[in-house]
Amino acid sequence: MRVEILCTGDEILTGKTINTNYSHIARRLAEVGLDVHWGTTVGDDRTSLLAAFRQAGERADAVIVNGGLGPTVDDLSQEVAAEACGVPLVLSEYWMQRMTESYARRGRVMPVNNKKQAMLPEGAEFIDNPIGTACGFAVTIGKARFLFTPGVPREMRRMLDEQVIPRLLKLGGITGVTRLKRFHTFGIGESRADEMLAGIPGLAIDGEIKLGFQAHYPQLETKLAARGADADDLLRKLAPAEAEVRRRLGNFVVAEDEQTLEGVLLAKLGAGGYTLSVAETFTSGTIAARIASLPGAETVFKRGTISRALPADGASKEAAAKLATELRAESGASHGLAVLMQLDEGADRPDFGATIAIGIADPATAVARQARLVGGRDWVRIGAAELGLDCLRRHLLGLPVDERIDFERR
Amino acid sequence: MRVEILCTGDEILTGKTINTNYSHIARRLAEVGLDVHWGTTVGDDRTSLLAAFRQAGERADAVIVNGGLGPTVDDLSQEVAAEACGVPLVLSEYWMQRMTESYARRGRVMPVNNKKQAMLPEGAEFIDNPIGTACGFAVTIGKARFLFTPGVPREMRRMLDEQVIPRLLKLGGITGVTRLKRFHTFGIGESRADEMLAGIPGLAIDGEIKLGFQAHYPQLETKLAARGADADDLLRKLAPAEAEVRRRLGNFVVAEDEQTLEGVLLAKLGAGGYTLSVAETFTSGTIAARIASLPGAETVFKRGTISRALPADGASKEAAAKLATELRAESGASHGLAVLMQLDEGADRPDFGATIAIGIADPATAVARQARLVGGRDWVRIGAAELGLDCLRRHLLGLPVDERIDFERR
Repeated sequence: MRVEILCTGDEILTGKTINTNYSHIARRLAEVGLDVHWGTTVGDDRTSLLAAFRQAGERADAVIVNGGLGPTVDDLSQEVAAEACGVPLVLSEYWMQRMTESYARRGRVMPVNNKKQAMLPEGAEFIDNPIGTACGFAVTIGKARFLFTPGVPREMRRMLDEQVIPRLLKLGGITGVTRLKRFHTFGIGESRADEMLAGIPGLAIDGEIKLGFQAHYPQLETKLAARGADADDLLRKLAPAEAEVRRRLGNFVVAEDEQTLEGVLLAKLGAGGYTLSVAETFTSGTIAARIASLPGAETVFKRGTISRALPADGASKEAAAKLATELRAESGASHGLAVLMQLDEGADRPDFGATIAIGIADPATAVARQARLVGGRDWVRIGAAELGLDCLRRHLLGLPVDERIDFERR
Repeated sequence: MRVEILCTGDEILTGKTINTNYSHIARRLAEVGLDVHWGTTVGDDRTSLLAAFRQAGERADAVIVNGGLGPTVDDLSQEVAAEACGVPLVLSEYWMQRMTESYARRGRVMPVNNKKQAMLPEGAEFIDNPIGTACGFAVTIGKARFLFTPGVPREMRRMLDEQVIPRLLKLGGITGVTRLKRFHTFGIGESRADEMLAGIPGLAIDGEIKLGFQAHYPQLETKLAARGADADDLLRKLAPAEAEVRRRLGNFVVAEDEQTLEGVLLAKLGAGGYTLSVAETFTSGTIAARIASLPGAETVFKRGTISRALPADGASKEAAAKLATELRAESGASHGLAVLMQLDEGADRPDFGATIAIGIADPATAVARQARLVGGRDWVRIGAAELGLDCLRRHLLGLPVDERIDFERR
């Protein structure tokens, strides 16, 4: 089945917004076994939209359209879809009511403009949006089925998984189930992970495993995708490969699937009946923010402190261990984490770096580690926060806190 | 002049690589007054490439092609361009020599594969690449001039500025300039802003103004775009519309153009010789992180504290004002900002909410404000952080801290 993605909107066309919706949609489709053959971007312009719909309708079997479902005059997707189909727009009483109720629940009156979002091409298939005012819809133009989704990423992502992909799989006559197993690592780059996992696709039983990587610094995501007759069959087929990936990536795996590093940490602290206090310098609260905002953190997270001033002896291992020890004593937490950074002098630049010292104290001991990261202010700040959290994870799991990471310069 | 961008490569088509080349090219073109009318993405596939070249050649006056100039077999741009032009590929002796010399200077022998990069469609215009082995070229397909650029961002960016844009401006006979004016607001939704700014495009002098919005919660971006003979002419034409937008959006404008709310705050605090300490509960460090990580914050940001425990009287105005006052006294800062949140009970859900109390203390006074936000844990946390920063901005500028925002439920 030939699938295309058609992104609309001046923001995307003019490059003001980087088109991450496109890459998200394309990746998700690949994960369920659907290949994207063509991508088109046009602006909020009637003539271009109509031409793009017609051309895609000649080439493709299915087209995912993203954007142009908002309440303002420059949102044209419904109108142009109706024109391409040669039908009028008609009011969806159902969606009008849903929107009105949604506003009412929040104690607000729906603006008049929003009525536009309930106008759909006559005969269009309704596609639900459970979390927004832009509903989706599907129509046929030329030989292709067009599925319209909103540009708001959160809404698009949910509708893609719950509404669009099931329809596409049905259209393409694709049966069976797919499974995507994900491993999140910190500390190894994509080329090293690729080397570490040589031969993994060959471990599948009766079928094919697709191995892929997605680098989103500071983490790397390793994905195993496979298809099977049913869920049990698929689990059985994937099991040996999953186990082998877990073994080879080893201590660098910080989380799997929907887990996050901070979620794993919070669960581990909570299970041990522990509490945590965090002291930060240039990471400026980003470490505390990752943990303290999580559901359930109120019983674990004791105190966070942020300053821009370093101890007298700078970002040394001794200073970090001392600060972590003092912090846990003062705050009454069972565990203290201190992340100190000594920034390079001067302006931001690609070889701007920092020396990072991490200290962890618990009732029995205090450990520390030092590292040097290079790559610009934001890069080192993000890396330092991750390194701090990962050291705490390693300490709690009894793994070496001092294992070299690929981003480190020694 | 109709310009299109055509991006090639499986990495881009499948979403594995986010297409930042596209947005860079489109933004740079807009900055010099060239509008992109259409974007196409195809993979390393002969049939798709040929069809894409032919279709763009029918629609556009100029097409920037990105990618497919590398030395490997899946790099097909020269071959397919030659096919579309109906000419053979011929060796550029000049480029062959340049590549050979470049390798020799680094003490290496050029791999045989690289010869492919010197094969250009017969009669093509050579476009220099001063920093790589993939030279560019230009040919005419249909009614459009096609300019080919490499996918390596560093090489593409330099060639775009030095080689491609001058050719496009000449092709288009363009002498004027464009301007994009941006206003960043907090507290009004897109539909309300649209209503507030009715009639703005009509305020242009001798020309057209395009009004657009981009919502990225919690902020809304309002954009005015226009074109003029030169920079002075354009400023004069846009001035009345700019002033009117600024007046109508009023107190909700937190920043303009490249400014950020936190940058505006830091500058205002710095200019007054002030220092700031921040106390947070469920925003968990995200407020401190926005300010304390900025260059120059080390002289302004005194201390951040994060806890998950609320004062005994909860998220009341009194508690927030008291905490802000104590914080500034204890930390020695001139200003204290406290943001308290009382979360709803239970699991995350779309109508999950929180009561937020914000306290601000300075040497002369203490003010406070309370608000209720609804929309899920992350939504209220992000909204509360923005509200805290915005209240401090309003206080420093002498604006009312208590003005109702659209996200608020009373």
